[in-house]
Amino acid sequence: MDTDMKTQQFDEDVDKILGLLQEKSYFKARDEILKHNEVDIGEILEEVLESLGVEKTIIIFRMLPKDVSVEVFSHLPSDDQVTIVHGITDREISYIIEELDFDDKIDVLEELPANIVDKILENTPKEERKLINTFLNYPDTCAGSLMTPDYISLQETMTVSEAMAHIKHEGMDSETVYTCYVKKGGRKLDGIVSLRALVIADDDMKISELMNTDYVYVNVYDDQEEVAETFKKYGFLAIPVVDNEHRLVGIITFDDILEVIEEETTEDIQRMAGVMDDSDTEYLDMGVFRHARNRIPWLVFMNISAMITGTIILRFETVLAQVIILVSYLPLLMSTGGNTGSQAATLVIRGMAVDDIDLKDALKVAWKEFRISIILGISLSILNMAKVVFIDGQKVIIGFTVALSMIIIVVFAKLLGSLLPMAAKKLGIDPALMANPMISSLTDMFSSVTFLLIASLLLGITL
Amino acid sequence: MDTDMKTQQFDEDVDKILGLLQEKSYFKARDEILKHNEVDIGEILEEVLESLGVEKTIIIFRMLPKDVSVEVFSHLPSDDQVTIVHGITDREISYIIEELDFDDKIDVLEELPANIVDKILENTPKEERKLINTFLNYPDTCAGSLMTPDYISLQETMTVSEAMAHIKHEGMDSETVYTCYVKKGGRKLDGIVSLRALVIADDDMKISELMNTDYVYVNVYDDQEEVAETFKKYGFLAIPVVDNEHRLVGIITFDDILEVIEEETTEDIQRMAGVMDDSDTEYLDMGVFRHARNRIPWLVFMNISAMITGTIILRFETVLAQVIILVSYLPLLMSTGGNTGSQAATLVIRGMAVDDIDLKDALKVAWKEFRISIILGISLSILNMAKVVFIDGQKVIIGFTVALSMIIIVVFAKLLGSLLPMAAKKLGIDPALMANPMISSLTDMFSSVTFLLIASLLLGITL
Repeated sequence: MDTDMKTQQFDEDVDKILGLLQEKSYFKARDEILKHNEVDIGEILEEVLESLGVEKTIIIFRMLPKDVSVEVFSHLPSDDQVTIVHGITDREISYIIEELDFDDKIDVLEELPANIVDKILENTPKEERKLINTFLNYPDTCAGSLMTPDYISLQETMTVSEAMAHIKHEGMDSETVYTCYVKKGGRKLDGIVSLRALVIADDDMKISELMNTDYVYVNVYDDQEEVAETFKKYGFLAIPVVDNEHRLVGIITFDDILEVIEEETTEDIQRMAGVMDDSDTEYLDMGVFRHARNRIPWLVFMNISAMITGTIILRFETVLAQVIILVSYLPLLMSTGGNTGSQAATLVIRGMAVDDIDLKDALKVAWKEFRISIILGISLSILNMAKVVFIDGQKVIIGFTVALSMIIIVVFAKLLGSLLPMAAKKLGIDPALMANPMISSLTDMFSSVTFLLIASLLLGITL
Repeated sequence: MDTDMKTQQFDEDVDKILGLLQEKSYFKARDEILKHNEVDIGEILEEVLESLGVEKTIIIFRMLPKDVSVEVFSHLPSDDQVTIVHGITDREISYIIEELDFDDKIDVLEELPANIVDKILENTPKEERKLINTFLNYPDTCAGSLMTPDYISLQETMTVSEAMAHIKHEGMDSETVYTCYVKKGGRKLDGIVSLRALVIADDDMKISELMNTDYVYVNVYDDQEEVAETFKKYGFLAIPVVDNEHRLVGIITFDDILEVIEEETTEDIQRMAGVMDDSDTEYLDMGVFRHARNRIPWLVFMNISAMITGTIILRFETVLAQVIILVSYLPLLMSTGGNTGSQAATLVIRGMAVDDIDLKDALKVAWKEFRISIILGISLSILNMAKVVFIDGQKVIIGFTVALSMIIIVVFAKLLGSLLPMAAKKLGIDPALMANPMISSLTDMFSSVTFLLIASLLLGITL
């Protein structure tokens, strides 16, 4: 079966389950659901919640075997987790929270209302409560908020077989066993050793001989974007997180990083289109007022900028009144400016995001964009000259006005589009904000002034 | 040290090394280089190549210990690998190629000129040559091109301790040891078992008791984007790749998937800005003609569309000639249409890419965007009405013309922006192509017609 067929099969299964739930055949529905793995059951529950509402979702969720329900719960989006928490008993909540992996536990607690969190923490042993509170206090986008304290600790003095026995004992409760951490004198991180190295090594070798002391680590307050960069660069399974005293406080595993990469990319893409959204709420789960609020700041900015462009155009009223045909070429030049600028900006913003372009490459980038813009500017101006003269039947001087403006506008737009994001980065501003909305606002102004100025000069119209 | 300080330290180290190489202190430079790990040495060599040219890069590369040089080579971008291959002897090439992990080997061979590949394959044992040729023949963007045949195979009948002994023996040459694959009757995949399960289990348990037979797999011809989706969904370390007869042909590990995710996202982002680039060449490594070629198709499309908009505007010449102030509001309405439409398109395209939005949500999306556009349309029209009447000192009827057009344009743009990408996906066209360039081309036409039509109606001007 290829992937498409698997997807189709899954969709059919979901429809069948929805049908069974609708006719209240709960036990049959449960049996169908349990044919799937926990990740897929999570997706099925999302569908049930969306199509049939909260009540049926809670019923079927409570009918799942306890261990399955915990696994499934951990794979649900956080809104759905909150919905379920509100529908089940305190005892059921406590059971689920207790059984969750530590990092999932923190994620859930972060989303729940304070009174529910308090109730859960009341029943938690004092030591764990303290740890949970520490983790809950890390800022939302730093390494600390991604990590788990459930890792395998080894001692330098252990032999391989002692270490393996330790892993056998602790392995069930650890987030990963594939990288183990060697601590010395209390909590300072001394080295790391992979399970592969342990498995391949002789039983009586010492951990101190096997461990890697030149490991890569992150600080607990490092931004999650930097942590993701480090993962991408080295292809790690897990990375140790240390505090300012170099004590090991937790580890971050790659599965949590995949989510960070996706979130950060989404944020970048949205900013590049002028949408400011600092939540991780999915499109469909967000209310219309929130959607509107995320979009209005840039729209107002661009609106005001377009008002200014409009006012500039009016200064050339005499030119326009005399040669009304120019009005029809204005959108052409403005859109070319915006589009060419936006192409350059997008390539440079993305290039910086994936580390292909550095700030010190600014001159190289500018020189490249200059040459590209000459090629594009000349091509487009020939196309437009031909259109103005042969199709519109205008005078050659009008065609020349359009063509000359076109070249100047394309060169300006490409340079602005490529250098503005780099300047923003230099100043500590997110380069993604310098994409299309900003670039096209600025090029619109430039394009109209350039075109109308050249027109008045070439056509000999006094302003 | 936090990450910023580490980066700064690294930059200083690189500068020092560049300095040493410039004054030809090769041995000192090598010693400095060898203080870093292989990934970082790769970055250093990239810098050397960029700043000091091929010759010095080759010299220092050949001075690295052999095992280090292979590791470093595998981390270099493919252009740089080709550069180095051209500068070293055939014997050195053969050594490096032989020592590379199988999937890296395939990646390198794919980039090398055919005559070099032939020379390398001549010295390869027949069995491996056959395997290499099979792998080289998989299409560039399918699962087959990402996989490696170096995995751990186990038999169902093995005990845990037999399996562990097997892993100890084979582990060095395997891409990963953390997931092992159980095959029955020759090559059919029967189940998978994690090293964690093996380590935790009792020594005399049978693999058949431990293995998971309900595993997720991909087909060798599945598209790499689908494979990446599967990794993201399940958080796998590795996934088995099977052929149409369900024989295990290889595995894909998560580190290769991180690259795929980055490439696919870059392609999407570029398409959303009207740049068509099907290569993975980095921005700075691409020639200006190639850059121009990637950008010109959309520019011409948008240019022609703007010509049509211009022609439409000219049909309203009488309106414009009578009330020239309208010309100054045209860019305002056109840019609002483009920007609001592009916001909606971007959110929907990204929402579909990360599976938050399904095709069956089309009605929900449209209803949401309709309500959002009413809120935004009314807000913006109040702002603009005020500007036209109080700042520009125009008649209320002109303000009303702008305000009414604004609402209609915003509603249209949001609906078009959200539904066009979904329609594209339904038709099997990449939704990313329906972002800003396409949307703003279409809304520009709609905006100018709407505005000028409403103006002629409200102002009582016969066309």
